[in-house]
Amino acid sequence: MIAEILAVGTEILLGDIINTNAQYLAKELASLGISVYHQSVVGDNGERLKAALNLALSRADLVITTGGLGPTKDDLTKEFASEYFNKKLILDEDSLNAIKYYFKKMNIEINEGNKKQAYFPEGSTILKNDYGTAPGCIIDGNDKIVVLLPGPPREMKPMFENYVIPYLMKYQQGVLVSKVLRICGIGEGIMAERIGHIIDAQNNPTVAPYAKQNEAILRITAKADNEEEALNLIQPMEKDIRDILGEHVYGVGETSLEEEVGKVLIKNNLTISTAESCTGGLLAGRLINYPGISSVFMEGAITYSDEAKMRSVGVKKETLEAYGAVSSEVAAEMAEGIAKVAGTDIGISTTGIAGPGGATKDKPVGLVYIGLYINGSVKTKELNIPGDRQKVRDRSVTTAIDWLRRELNRL
Amino acid sequence: MIAEILAVGTEILLGDIINTNAQYLAKELASLGISVYHQSVVGDNGERLKAALNLALSRADLVITTGGLGPTKDDLTKEFASEYFNKKLILDEDSLNAIKYYFKKMNIEINEGNKKQAYFPEGSTILKNDYGTAPGCIIDGNDKIVVLLPGPPREMKPMFENYVIPYLMKYQQGVLVSKVLRICGIGEGIMAERIGHIIDAQNNPTVAPYAKQNEAILRITAKADNEEEALNLIQPMEKDIRDILGEHVYGVGETSLEEEVGKVLIKNNLTISTAESCTGGLLAGRLINYPGISSVFMEGAITYSDEAKMRSVGVKKETLEAYGAVSSEVAAEMAEGIAKVAGTDIGISTTGIAGPGGATKDKPVGLVYIGLYINGSVKTKELNIPGDRQKVRDRSVTTAIDWLRRELNRL
Repeated sequence: MIAEILAVGTEILLGDIINTNAQYLAKELASLGISVYHQSVVGDNGERLKAALNLALSRADLVITTGGLGPTKDDLTKEFASEYFNKKLILDEDSLNAIKYYFKKMNIEINEGNKKQAYFPEGSTILKNDYGTAPGCIIDGNDKIVVLLPGPPREMKPMFENYVIPYLMKYQQGVLVSKVLRICGIGEGIMAERIGHIIDAQNNPTVAPYAKQNEAILRITAKADNEEEALNLIQPMEKDIRDILGEHVYGVGETSLEEEVGKVLIKNNLTISTAESCTGGLLAGRLINYPGISSVFMEGAITYSDEAKMRSVGVKKETLEAYGAVSSEVAAEMAEGIAKVAGTDIGISTTGIAGPGGATKDKPVGLVYIGLYINGSVKTKELNIPGDRQKVRDRSVTTAIDWLRRELNRL
Repeated sequence: MIAEILAVGTEILLGDIINTNAQYLAKELASLGISVYHQSVVGDNGERLKAALNLALSRADLVITTGGLGPTKDDLTKEFASEYFNKKLILDEDSLNAIKYYFKKMNIEINEGNKKQAYFPEGSTILKNDYGTAPGCIIDGNDKIVVLLPGPPREMKPMFENYVIPYLMKYQQGVLVSKVLRICGIGEGIMAERIGHIIDAQNNPTVAPYAKQNEAILRITAKADNEEEALNLIQPMEKDIRDILGEHVYGVGETSLEEEVGKVLIKNNLTISTAESCTGGLLAGRLINYPGISSVFMEGAITYSDEAKMRSVGVKKETLEAYGAVSSEVAAEMAEGIAKVAGTDIGISTTGIAGPGGATKDKPVGLVYIGLYINGSVKTKELNIPGDRQKVRDRSVTTAIDWLRRELNRL
């Protein structure tokens, strides 16, 4: 079954509100195994609404509309849907009584527009609105289904969950199961190239790459009669991908680099501290995104000035003079220094030139050193990051945590 | 001019991401006086993408697409747009060099897919991507304009603002001048209420409130024959708004709280240091967003453990025992302590319960104390922030910097 989501509302076209309904419905339909090929938005304009509805019905089996069920003359979704199915609008007494009751409770006089909300296409299934006045309805005929829902999310969502999902379940063939692999340390382009033969040969399951900030994800989706079968279809493709991408795959589903690292640290009871120059607190800030971290994250030093580098984390004056603050040597001393000061198993440091100022001929913007003191010894890594200050700092933090993750795998 | 917004991306159809681009573009187009009649979303499917693009071009003068400019075979927006205009895709050497440079700096091999991003329809206007590899472009011909933008909002938005708006301005009659007031310390709802009479009476200039993360903006837009006239129209409305909102207005245009604070610190040669518990580095990280800050920001301590609070910033054992780590007293000692240790004029601290764990009966999630040592004395502020861990930490940081801003105004 192919579905289309049609939102009706000038306020969306003006950008006054964001179309969160479309995302909600898209996600729900995907989990029901119903494919969505198009989402559209049209304003409260009769002619264009009619055309959009007819277009949607020409290319989909199921059209779900949101909005345009209100009491004003502009609210015409129900009218055009009835026209399409060649049905009359008839009064539903129960709905009218519910509306009357609602207004009485609110101490408001009911008007003609409100009464309009109690009219429905003949033979349609009326969907009760538990959170507002506009009921929805489902019209089903000639191999097409139209589901008309109100616009406000807090009315639409419970109506969909409580009444539409049970209705659609009878059209359900099998299930659609997705598994998301999270990937770090490799760009979306290179990743897609390396697994290009898998992407090219995909059928069921399908696989789709997405670029996220500083990481990429791969979504493997299988269609089958039941969840177990779907997972069995996913398993060999996941294995092939993991064989190719190896350690770049850092997690599955809703997780993050810092969460994965945090879990390993806690499991192995390894304490950690940070010493930051160019990332100025963002590395610690990212690590402690993971709520459990406080049992192993002890402290951090943001040593922006040379003086702070010497006093707080014991960087030697000679090292600063010989190599400069942005150097592999200083990164090493910072990492080891903070671990010693804080008495932690691991110390991790950053020093670099985030820009736009501060660059020299030998040390351009984007040059960053990461120091990692772990398992009794210290290593450093040099990065050259293109982009602006924000990007240099973000990428430094991600790379530092990703490096720590890989080193923890080796312990 | 009638416009249509077409988003390309299976991840939107699956509900994995929300189409924030559509709202952004809708708002921008509305403020340019360009009407949007349809928004559509289509997946990374050649046939349907082509049909959607042709449909959009049949009913609009200007079609703006987002997404489908990536390096993979699925990314086909540019290809179909060229086909529509009957143009060949030709290599743009400058774009190729920019992409090569980007990859070289990253130490990554460039692949064929990445090179594809440097091909553009013959005669099109290439839009530089300042935040990623995929440039956009504008194709203009036969009374139709297609603007192709990348999908990631942080690449799309600056491209639209910096290159597309100036391009579209030539289709504008007169000029449209906007002035953005940045507002902090007051919610969008309350703000809109206080200036409700101005919003209700708006005509030319118009005024539109937008909620941003932890702040709000007001965009005043005037249409006139020239810039000077437009600014003259804006001036009295800006004055009225400033009279009402007072100190909540912290800046104009592209700026940030940390930039405004940074400028004042530098101008008055006031040095600063930070001591953070619950915000774990995010306060320092936000302050040093402003590039010039390194001349006055000396260092920060992230004192997560009690031991670190005592050792690094001199919090007294008795204070911790008597009041607990999350207390006004500890916040005060942290702020004064870091200022003394680092030898700075100002010390600013945070201690609180970010959640989800750590709450007690007396100290719920969201309870945060900020300490501010300035001008030789220390003050504290208690916050009770609703929301999750991320929100508690973000709001703490914003409130701390905003408080510092207001105190600096009083010096």
